[in-house]
Amino acid sequence: ARLVFYGLFALQHRGQESAGIASYDGSRIHSKKNIGLVSQVFSESDITRLSGMDAIGHTRYSTTGASDIRNVQPFLVDSRNGPIALAHNGNIVNAIEIRQSLFARGVGLTSASDTELMIMTLAGAAGETWVERIRNAMTTWIGAYSFVVLTQEGVFAARDRWGMRPLCWGRTAEGAVVFASETCALATLGCSEFHDIEAGNIVSCDSRGTIGIDPGTGKAHSASCIFEFVYFSRPDSNWNGQAVHEVRTRFGAELARSAPADADLVIPVPDSSISAAIGYARESGIPYGEAFVKNRYIGRTFIEPTTSLRKRGVALKFNVLRDAVKGRRVVVIDDSIVRGNTVKPLVALLRNAGAVQVHVRVASPPVHFPCRMGVDMGEYDELVANRMSPEELAVWSGADSLAYLSLELVGKVIGNRDDYCAACFSGKYPFPVERSSLKSSFEF
Amino acid sequence: ARLVFYGLFALQHRGQESAGIASYDGSRIHSKKNIGLVSQVFSESDITRLSGMDAIGHTRYSTTGASDIRNVQPFLVDSRNGPIALAHNGNIVNAIEIRQSLFARGVGLTSASDTELMIMTLAGAAGETWVERIRNAMTTWIGAYSFVVLTQEGVFAARDRWGMRPLCWGRTAEGAVVFASETCALATLGCSEFHDIEAGNIVSCDSRGTIGIDPGTGKAHSASCIFEFVYFSRPDSNWNGQAVHEVRTRFGAELARSAPADADLVIPVPDSSISAAIGYARESGIPYGEAFVKNRYIGRTFIEPTTSLRKRGVALKFNVLRDAVKGRRVVVIDDSIVRGNTVKPLVALLRNAGAVQVHVRVASPPVHFPCRMGVDMGEYDELVANRMSPEELAVWSGADSLAYLSLELVGKVIGNRDDYCAACFSGKYPFPVERSSLKSSFEF
Amino acid sequence: ARLVFYGLFALQHRGQESAGIASYDGSRIHSKKNIGLVSQVFSESDITRLSGMDAIGHTRYSTTGASDIRNVQPFLVDSRNGPIALAHNGNIVNAIEIRQSLFARGVGLTSASDTELMIMTLAGAAGETWVERIRNAMTTWIGAYSFVVLTQEGVFAARDRWGMRPLCWGRTAEGAVVFASETCALATLGCSEFHDIEAGNIVSCDSRGTIGIDPGTGKAHSASCIFEFVYFSRPDSNWNGQAVHEVRTRFGAELARSAPADADLVIPVPDSSISAAIGYARESGIPYGEAFVKNRYIGRTFIEPTTSLRKRGVALKFNVLRDAVKGRRVVVIDDSIVRGNTVKPLVALLRNAGAVQVHVRVASPPVHFPCRMGVDMGEYDELVANRMSPEELAVWSGADSLAYLSLELVGKVIGNRDDYCAACFSGKYPFPVERSSLKSSFEF
Amino acid sequence: ARLVFYGLFALQHRGQESAGIASYDGSRIHSKKNIGLVSQVFSESDITRLSGMDAIGHTRYSTTGASDIRNVQPFLVDSRNGPIALAHNGNIVNAIEIRQSLFARGVGLTSASDTELMIMTLAGAAGETWVERIRNAMTTWIGAYSFVVLTQEGVFAARDRWGMRPLCWGRTAEGAVVFASETCALATLGCSEFHDIEAGNIVSCDSRGTIGIDPGTGKAHSASCIFEFVYFSRPDSNWNGQAVHEVRTRFGAELARSAPADADLVIPVPDSSISAAIGYARESGIPYGEAFVKNRYIGRTFIEPTTSLRKRGVALKFNVLRDAVKGRRVVVIDDSIVRGNTVKPLVALLRNAGAVQVHVRVASPPVHFPCRMGVDMGEYDELVANRMSPEELAVWSGADSLAYLSLELVGKVIGNRDDYCAACFSGKYPFPVERSSLKSSFEF
Repeated sequence: ARLVFYGLFALQHRGQESAGIASYDGSRIHSKKNIGLVSQVFSESDITRLSGMDAIGHTRYSTTGASDIRNVQPFLVDSRNGPIALAHNGNIVNAIEIRQSLFARGVGLTSASDTELMIMTLAGAAGETWVERIRNAMTTWIGAYSFVVLTQEGVFAARDRWGMRPLCWGRTAEGAVVFASETCALATLGCSEFHDIEAGNIVSCDSRGTIGIDPGTGKAHSASCIFEFVYFSRPDSNWNGQAVHEVRTRFGAELARSAPADADLVIPVPDSSISAAIGYARESGIPYGEAFVKNRYIGRTFIEPTTSLRKRGVALKFNVLRDAVKGRRVVVIDDSIVRGNTVKPLVALLRNAGAVQVHVRVASPPVHFPCRMGVDMGEYDELVANRMSPEELAVWSGADSLAYLSLELVGKVIGNRDDYCAACFSGKYPFPVERSSLKSSFEF
Repeated sequence: ARLVFYGLFALQHRGQESAGIASYDGSRIHSKKNIGLVSQVFSESDITRLSGMDAIGHTRYSTTGASDIRNVQPFLVDSRNGPIALAHNGNIVNAIEIRQSLFARGVGLTSASDTELMIMTLAGAAGETWVERIRNAMTTWIGAYSFVVLTQEGVFAARDRWGMRPLCWGRTAEGAVVFASETCALATLGCSEFHDIEAGNIVSCDSRGTIGIDPGTGKAHSASCIFEFVYFSRPDSNWNGQAVHEVRTRFGAELARSAPADADLVIPVPDSSISAAIGYARESGIPYGEAFVKNRYIGRTFIEPTTSLRKRGVALKFNVLRDAVKGRRVVVIDDSIVRGNTVKPLVALLRNAGAVQVHVRVASPPVHFPCRMGVDMGEYDELVANRMSPEELAVWSGADSLAYLSLELVGKVIGNRDDYCAACFSGKYPFPVERSSLKSSFEF
Repeated sequence: ARLVFYGLFALQHRGQESAGIASYDGSRIHSKKNIGLVSQVFSESDITRLSGMDAIGHTRYSTTGASDIRNVQPFLVDSRNGPIALAHNGNIVNAIEIRQSLFARGVGLTSASDTELMIMTLAGAAGETWVERIRNAMTTWIGAYSFVVLTQEGVFAARDRWGMRPLCWGRTAEGAVVFASETCALATLGCSEFHDIEAGNIVSCDSRGTIGIDPGTGKAHSASCIFEFVYFSRPDSNWNGQAVHEVRTRFGAELARSAPADADLVIPVPDSSISAAIGYARESGIPYGEAFVKNRYIGRTFIEPTTSLRKRGVALKFNVLRDAVKGRRVVVIDDSIVRGNTVKPLVALLRNAGAVQVHVRVASPPVHFPCRMGVDMGEYDELVANRMSPEELAVWSGADSLAYLSLELVGKVIGNRDDYCAACFSGKYPFPVERSSLKSSFEF
Repeated sequence: ARLVFYGLFALQHRGQESAGIASYDGSRIHSKKNIGLVSQVFSESDITRLSGMDAIGHTRYSTTGASDIRNVQPFLVDSRNGPIALAHNGNIVNAIEIRQSLFARGVGLTSASDTELMIMTLAGAAGETWVERIRNAMTTWIGAYSFVVLTQEGVFAARDRWGMRPLCWGRTAEGAVVFASETCALATLGCSEFHDIEAGNIVSCDSRGTIGIDPGTGKAHSASCIFEFVYFSRPDSNWNGQAVHEVRTRFGAELARSAPADADLVIPVPDSSISAAIGYARESGIPYGEAFVKNRYIGRTFIEPTTSLRKRGVALKFNVLRDAVKGRRVVVIDDSIVRGNTVKPLVALLRNAGAVQVHVRVASPPVHFPCRMGVDMGEYDELVANRMSPEELAVWSGADSLAYLSLELVGKVIGNRDDYCAACFSGKYPFPVERSSLKSSFEF
């Protein structure tokens, strides 16, 4: 549990709503979970209590906004095959169908979480072994899911057959096997080797640290989430054989070539655009600088601002280094524009600080379609690209120019473009999806 | 929920470990539950949030000692027939069998509570209506259970076919239907009429307050818990047509006849023995008095006492009115002796205060057998009657004499003796029972 | 601290709003205090942390209603004479004057508590020793105060020169010295000898348990609070050489003689009237019985009742044993009538249960004057005796008759009547008082 | 209070231990304060409750490590001149003397905070007006202190006569006057003009927003804290007429000239070294890059790491972008080296990632002396510069070279060098200081 605790810190960027750990000590499963950041949820006495050599953990990112203690992972049940704990990243798109089939066999459900559906499916899945049961359960689930299961027979980690969300494993110098969504967590814990888990595969680890790899459901057409490279993953992670920072730097370089700007300074919107800005600066030869200072503490506050502060919008989160931009022509690099709330106040901040030109460059294509596989992008009418062309957006935001990186160039950087899901840009979903969300009849 | 809240106060003596309320507002079920007394669990804003015209509540008495938030009732699930909330009083004796059959149909379980088994049975029970489903579920449950179920179609209240635990209903002056374990709660809420629910029956109440009575599983041989009269129920409740206070007063009177004592004063061990002491005093003609002052606040504390305080044992909870007993011959009435921890220090307190004789009279028979139907009496070797005869107990405790009320006389007072379960005194259980307790594999 | 913790339970009836303990370990003072009952405030780890051989504690009764963490005792300050902790029972009537004199010497104050005034007075009091400083401080304070002070030189306990509030000391079998407001706490901790501290005296106890008695300010005319006998003290306490239970029993007997009733049953309003009811029954020869069952859990709840429940008023707290009163003529004994909220609904409960006559007898005189010395009786217009004669009160409440015990007979029972403050009955205050309450300018 | 709340976010970097706000509504002072970050301490209902047009707030940085609710600011007292709330930044070096003089006039103290000393001094200070009282109090205080006082007559802000800590004011577009430690908070709240408060001055603001400037104690020899430029202030703040980011960029440039390195890449230790690294890169012509990814969530955790994690030390907080440094010669810029815990593991991270050379450049001089004026640098033996020369430190840390920026060059960048306190580098304190810390005798 102590290793898991430190590993969760490295994955906190993937979910800040809640956190949990479950451990197995050879006879019982111990668990602690709560709403809050990793640093808030666990005390030293919790970690001490979470005894045993096997443990799994989770940090949750809410795609719904409502934070509900019932949805905090890992989920735990006793089943005919012993106790199970499950933590998962992703979104099951046929959740309503799964829910009906569980109801049909007389299961009662306590939450609106697809993780509960998954653990109840596992509790009733056919099969002699956990690998068989997990495989049988996976064949019924459509969507994005990378998950870990803690049982009396060890830990199992598996990825959906489309390989949508990342999942990898490594081994520390001391021999501990670590599963994690991103390699940055493996690095933090001191692993020297990193392995992606293949799409559809089920990787098992028993309490001696022996690894077994089962083909599981096998691969479908590959549909890795392209947005992991654009925004979601940490720059120090590697995925599908590529370093995220390098990919983003090359996004920036391609952007410099495809959408050049005559300017004095290239600045990132911190923090996720730094790599692309460095790439743009190098390729264009325009000096790199910092101009926005981000208030790292403001986070999600639920305190209503005053009217005058509300007008400042996202500018509350950013101050400008006035001397850095005064009298200069500035290129601002943003990793993506989704709802478009940020761009206008940021341009205004630069203008007020004396920038003579402001050119916005976006290191990814316009987002036209909602994600149904676990990234909260909003619905059609919330996506600014569905309301304004790049030119209109430039005018509206007060920028001198605004350009996106094309999907072709994104594909060029990444390589085998067809292996990625770019539904948010292209509308081509890897399987039929519909908007539908589970609802619990209960409110606590 | 507001009515339920006040009703729970009247039933707090039946369980002080945790409390909960669930309400249904026509579309959702709202719930609040936690470890603690009723006064600690609910705030005004909770009660306001618990909207709707239908509500159920519960106070929990732990027969295991461990308090676990997972066991707090009501339990809630979504099911194929809509949301359900369930609260129950009693103990299912074939819980392990029920658990296995739920596992067999692929249900995962999250607690060691028999209430979860009941709600999952209901979630999968066959039947077109809730009455049918409840009846079908009840046929599989053996044990003591009085329960209420909140559904979209109203509230259902039912009692096991042996009629072991009480359950009654009434109607307030304003027309609200109230179900409760004891009539004292009906009286508190202002009901003027009280009805016992018959063993095996299912009583329904829709949102207009219409009552329906279904024969349910029908009656088995009646086995109402005799200990409700001895100790558990509040003296101001009525059950099976008798007022608890009156029954206890007659226990006291029979005790005075069968085990007289030559004494100056009759005193109760507060609070549950007051009725019997009044009966003993009246029948014997010996004046009634109070001599023990009980510290009502000490309750269950988890602070380790000092060595010298530990020696004082239960005496920490009681002080003696020295002038009341000094130089007197005293009859102490206790409602029952189970583990026997109390009698010795109480006798010592009276001796130290100057009582010249102390006669202990117990208004019920010796407890020889554990209860498997929901009263925590301890196991065989914990029951003092299995280790000492009345005479030995008198000597050990320092009393001049000690006598119990015989089971025959208890029967004489109550009337139809065969309709009661007196297994704790006689060892005749109404159905086969075995010691077995559910265990969850999880620890939170 | 462990002894103090158990002692506080025995004094919980004197204050249920908050609790605190401070201990001195030879170098530092450790403290824990909070809003809540003793059982809620302290955990085992708190008690363990409160190390040292000297400790004081407090339970607070709020005369203002507002519960504020700043007012929780003991108060603690560092001073030129080392650290001090102080806990006190009573009310300083010249608080505004003391506050002004502290302001004048440049002290800043953080609360509206007279305890803070006392500890700041002590922090600046002249004197070579703590006894001198305490004596000098006491000469400036007018009012009721029994207090304990924890210093590096031991514990000091003192009572105001009028002897208004009780304060006593004893020694356990193991040799520990215990100070307490009432002897019931000494008895609970196993003390065999009880000593009242004389009015104006300062009793010291060093860490070896050596007791020193200093005459302090000396006695003024004695003015012990008569309401301690009427209501406030526990029946098992002794004060001024008399057992509280015995005094109350004799109040009941005098009441039977001065205000007889032709009736079948004498019943108390539980719990504080039981002693007087026993006295009334014995003297009158009318049988004693119980008819009201009090809900001990309902306490102070802040949940608004429904309209129908509100109409039931205090009846929510009491049920009646219907069979006990049906068709009977009943004498109800109450210890006192202050605001008069209780009497009407209690009479109605008895009538509804079938009592044919209800005679109310009050074991103390009518309360006409507010207490300024620490008992929250309300102001003039809140006292029902200022609005209705006994006859009017009988009619209004629906009783067949209603009578008080006269102040003369109270005096007769207690003996040296002039040594007691009966200002609430007579209006004769022991010193000039005026209505005035401290207010803090802060709200947390 | 709502403005103050948002302002505190902008100052959160100055103290993350606790936060508080006090507001005055014309009759009372409302206050909320607690341990935790700004985002954790305040709820919407707190902010609503904190009514009034005048408010002050504080975020606390603990120089002692122990977090104690008693030390959370603002402090509040009632005084002879009405209620006062006070928040301060800095450290009083003659605190023990002040404490003795307060004791001497009979004040009791509840904490070990110098803020309590300040507010008690004010409560007893002579003077007809608050400006006079504040001036009189300030003449007795030696040390670094910038503070704000909330009274019935408005808000007063003042700086010690050495001008050690920053304090400025501005006015929002809506006309609200804002006082803050740094201009970044003024900018966040939308102020367009920024004014430094002069050393020794007292600036008042009444409830109409009228500003008054009083010379106060007048200036001593100026001794502004040079470490504010090196590390403490946010880069987007201005102080003493200079932009912090610009000063740091010029530190980097001077460092590039005085300690050049033959390398391929300049990288900062995020976040405080970014400005200096940009300056170094520009001056040297070596490309700027990012190589360390900081885990922003790990913060201060109190969970003990495993042995293997402990060995990784600060590396737990940083991952390296392997591809960015592999095969390269790297210059790492750090803003300062104080205890020296960070440098060795950071160099190791770069080496393991394949850096062929690692040159450490520090954008400030070696720290040889503890700060007594409010920056927690540790004691003499904790300062690595007192144990190792730059060359030794390079060898020990595994770097190819290591160089500091000289104090001369720091002075050259800042300009009027004599106006700054550089005691941590030079040992020349602006007034006699001694190591001494206040201690409370209490532990809660």
